[in-house]
Amino acid sequence: MTPDEFRRYGYQTIDWIADYLAHPERYPVLAPVKPGQLTDALPASGPERGEPMEAILADFDRLVAPAVTHWNHPGFMAYFANTGSEPGILGELLSAALNVNGMVWQSSPAVVELEQVALRWLREWTGLPLDWFGLIYDTASVASMHAVAAAREAADPQSRTRGTSPGLVVYASGQAHSSIEKGAIAVGIGQDNFRKVPVDAEFRMRPDALAEMVGRDLAAGLHPCCVCATVGTTATTSVDPVPEIADIAERHGLWLHVDAAYAGSLMLAPEFRWAFAGCDRADSLVMNPHKWLLTPMDCSAFFTRRPEVLRSAFSLIPEYLRTAFDPRAVNLMDYGVPLGRRFRALKLWFVMRYYGREGLANLLRAHVALAQELAAQVDADSRFERTAPTPFSVVCFRYKGTDDQNKRIQERVNSTGEIFISGTVLNDRYTLRIAIGNQATLRSHVQRAWELIHEAADAL
Amino acid sequence: MTPDEFRRYGYQTIDWIADYLAHPERYPVLAPVKPGQLTDALPASGPERGEPMEAILADFDRLVAPAVTHWNHPGFMAYFANTGSEPGILGELLSAALNVNGMVWQSSPAVVELEQVALRWLREWTGLPLDWFGLIYDTASVASMHAVAAAREAADPQSRTRGTSPGLVVYASGQAHSSIEKGAIAVGIGQDNFRKVPVDAEFRMRPDALAEMVGRDLAAGLHPCCVCATVGTTATTSVDPVPEIADIAERHGLWLHVDAAYAGSLMLAPEFRWAFAGCDRADSLVMNPHKWLLTPMDCSAFFTRRPEVLRSAFSLIPEYLRTAFDPRAVNLMDYGVPLGRRFRALKLWFVMRYYGREGLANLLRAHVALAQELAAQVDADSRFERTAPTPFSVVCFRYKGTDDQNKRIQERVNSTGEIFISGTVLNDRYTLRIAIGNQATLRSHVQRAWELIHEAADAL
Repeated sequence: MTPDEFRRYGYQTIDWIADYLAHPERYPVLAPVKPGQLTDALPASGPERGEPMEAILADFDRLVAPAVTHWNHPGFMAYFANTGSEPGILGELLSAALNVNGMVWQSSPAVVELEQVALRWLREWTGLPLDWFGLIYDTASVASMHAVAAAREAADPQSRTRGTSPGLVVYASGQAHSSIEKGAIAVGIGQDNFRKVPVDAEFRMRPDALAEMVGRDLAAGLHPCCVCATVGTTATTSVDPVPEIADIAERHGLWLHVDAAYAGSLMLAPEFRWAFAGCDRADSLVMNPHKWLLTPMDCSAFFTRRPEVLRSAFSLIPEYLRTAFDPRAVNLMDYGVPLGRRFRALKLWFVMRYYGREGLANLLRAHVALAQELAAQVDADSRFERTAPTPFSVVCFRYKGTDDQNKRIQERVNSTGEIFISGTVLNDRYTLRIAIGNQATLRSHVQRAWELIHEAADAL
Repeated sequence: MTPDEFRRYGYQTIDWIADYLAHPERYPVLAPVKPGQLTDALPASGPERGEPMEAILADFDRLVAPAVTHWNHPGFMAYFANTGSEPGILGELLSAALNVNGMVWQSSPAVVELEQVALRWLREWTGLPLDWFGLIYDTASVASMHAVAAAREAADPQSRTRGTSPGLVVYASGQAHSSIEKGAIAVGIGQDNFRKVPVDAEFRMRPDALAEMVGRDLAAGLHPCCVCATVGTTATTSVDPVPEIADIAERHGLWLHVDAAYAGSLMLAPEFRWAFAGCDRADSLVMNPHKWLLTPMDCSAFFTRRPEVLRSAFSLIPEYLRTAFDPRAVNLMDYGVPLGRRFRALKLWFVMRYYGREGLANLLRAHVALAQELAAQVDADSRFERTAPTPFSVVCFRYKGTDDQNKRIQERVNSTGEIFISGTVLNDRYTLRIAIGNQATLRSHVQRAWELIHEAADAL
C-alpha cells in the first residue's frame, strides 16, 4: 500500500470510528444475529488474489460491525462494561504501526521502560507500594495464573524441576473469579486442591472459614500455598476482608494474591481506598486498566512485591536471547509464559496523560453515583429487591417472582437492542445485574434501563 | 474527546504512520539509547490533571519513537523479522475502536465467527485438514503451553482434578523453542521431565534418539505424553522429520505438537509444502501470522484435531457466563486460560483479503530468495562459512575466526544503525544470524548487510 493510499484508507477508518463513537446507538447493543449468520455471509475460502481495500472496509461496515455486540453502546450494562477511549485507541494504533516486540530490553527499550514508567505512575495513583514490581499481561486470567504459579514456586521451589508437588492447596472464596480455579488447574495443582471458602451474607470471604480450612488441610498433611482475596467480585463486586485474610496468609506462609481486576481502578479515588485496606500486604495484585480505566483491550496490570519468585518460576533464557545483565534493562520475558510482548503500555500511557488522575477518578465516581441512584430506586420499589450490596457500580437485584420470570425480564430487555444486561445466580436464585462502566453511559441510559425492566415486569 | 478532535488527532496519527512507514530508515534500526534513558526523560509521576493530546503525540514522536528498536526498518534482520502491514494496522485500529470482548459467542458474535472463518481460510491455504479446530492465542509460547496442557489431559485426565501426575514426560529437540520447556514447567510437568532430544548435523531431531529416550522412560515406569516437532527452529530454521516423529508418537500414544510459529506461513506456497509433510498427523500445530504473514502483533494461530481434549482441560463455566449450547456459537473461553478475548481475527482477515494467498506467498518467496542469495555469497567467500543449512529465509554463518571476533563483527554492524542482526551458538561456537522477514527489506538492504559485515571483518 502506498503512503497516499494508507493516508486515504486511514482517514476513512478514522472517520468511521469518529462517527461510530459519536453515535454508538446506531447499532443495537446486543448483536441481533443468529449463530452462524456472519459465517454464512462470508465466503468459505479466502481470496487467491488480493482485493481492494474499499471492498474490505465496506464489508467490515456491512457485515462485521452489525454482528458485533457493542461494548461501546451506552446501553451496554452486562458483564463489566468497559471503555476503550479515544486516546487509548490512538495509542493502540501507534502500537500496531510500530509493531515491536519487547521480549527483551534490547528488542525494544521503549516497550520495557514505558511499561515500567506507566505502572509506577499507577502504583502512585493507587497508593500501592512504590517499590513493587509491575508488568502487563493480556488478561487478568493470565495474570492470576502467574500468581498461582508464583505461589507454587514460593511454597515449593522444586515444582519447577520435579513437577508440581502433590498436596499444594489454593484458596479463594466461592465468589472468586473462575480464573483462580482455572489457574490452579493449569499449573498442575488440580481442582481437588482448590478450596472455595464460604462467604458471608454479603458475599465476602469468611476469614474464620478460611482459617478453619487451612487448619484442616495442614492437619491432613497438605500444603496450603496460596489464597486469593477479591476486591470487587465478578457477580456482586463484594469486597473480601483483606486485612484478616492477610493475617492468615502471613501466619501460614501463603502467597496472598488480590484480584482487583474490576475494582482496582477505584483506588484512584481516595474515598474508595477503604475497600483496598490490607492490599499493601499482598504478594501480588491484578487490576485491569482495560476494564474501567479507559484503555482498550488488552491491558491487565500485575504488581508483585516478590518479582524474584515470579522470575525463578519462569526464567528460561535461550542462547539466542542472551543479553548482558543490567538492572535498568529488564527482560520481561523472564516473568511469565508469553515470550512476545507487544507495546501495550503505550495506550495506557496515552490514557493516563490525557485524562490525568483526577479525570479518571471523576469518571469512576460518576459511574458509582449512577449505580447508587439505581440501587435506591430498586429499594424503593416494592416489586423488586436488591440481592446484594452495591459498593461500587454494579447493581444486583431481582423481580420478586420466579427465576423464570426474571429471565423473561432479562430477555425482553435485551431484545430491545437498547440495553444489554446480564444475570447471575446468588443464593440459588436467578438475579439481574446492571454494570455501569462505559464512558458514554449517562443517567438517561440507566433510567431507560430501569423503565424497560418495569415494562418487562408489567408484561409478565 | 469530541468527534472533531478525534478526527483531527486521528488524521495526525495516520499521517505520522504514513511518513514512518514510507521512511523507516529515518531512525536507527537498533534504538541508540542507554538503559534507563527513556525512564529518566519522563516524569516520575503521572499528571493530576489531563494534558493536551498535542503534547502527548509530540512526546511520542520526541521521546518514545527514538527509544524503539524499529522492527519496521528494512535493516531489521534479527530474531525473526516481521511485518505489521498497512491493512493489518487498520484492522487493529478498528479492533481497538470496537473494543469488544469475545469470551463467549453472545458477548460478540463477530469475534468468534470471524476467527473461525479466518482460520478456516488459513487451513485451506496451508493444506491443513479442514476439519481441525482453530483459535487465536496471543503468542506461540502461550499456544504451546496449551498444547502441553492438552497432552497432559489426553494422557492423564485426572491431572485436571488431582493435579499433574508425576512421571509425565515431554520431548522436544535441543533446538526447540524455549516455550516448550517453559510450558512443561508451567503446567506442572517439570523441567526434569522435559527431554531435549539430540539433533543431527543439520539440527533436526533424531527420531532414533527420540525412540530410544521414550523407550528408556517407559522402562523406568515414566509416562511419555507429548512430543513437540519443530518446522523451522528458532536458531537455524531446521525442519524436524515430522513423519518419523509422528510414527513414534502414534506408537506410544504421545500428543504430537508441531511448532511452526515462524515457518508455518510458508505452507501458503506449494513449493515449500515438503517441509510440512506429516503435519496433518499432528494433534496440534501453531503458526504465527504476526511473524511472517503481515499481521501486527499479536496473532498466533493454533490448530488442533482434538478440540474436545483442550476443552476438557480448560472448560470451567461460571454461572454469570452460562449461555445455551449451540455448536455454531462456540465459547472460546472454554479452550484456554485467558477469559478475555480481543478481536484479533479482524486484522488477520484484513490482511488475508488485501494480499490474497498469492500475494502473501510471493512476498515469502522473495524473502527466501534473498536469503538463498546471501547463503551462496557466504559459501563463495573463503573468510566465512555457513553454520547451518538455509532452507528458508534465515542464514546462519560465521567469520572463520574466534567467537569474540564474530561478536565484534556483530556489534560493529549493529552500531551502524543501518542493520540489526542477532547471533546464536551452534555446536558450541558463536554464529551470526540474518533473518529476512520485513516487507520493506529489499535486495539492496541484504547486500548492504553483507558489505557491513565485510567491513567489520576487515577492521578486526
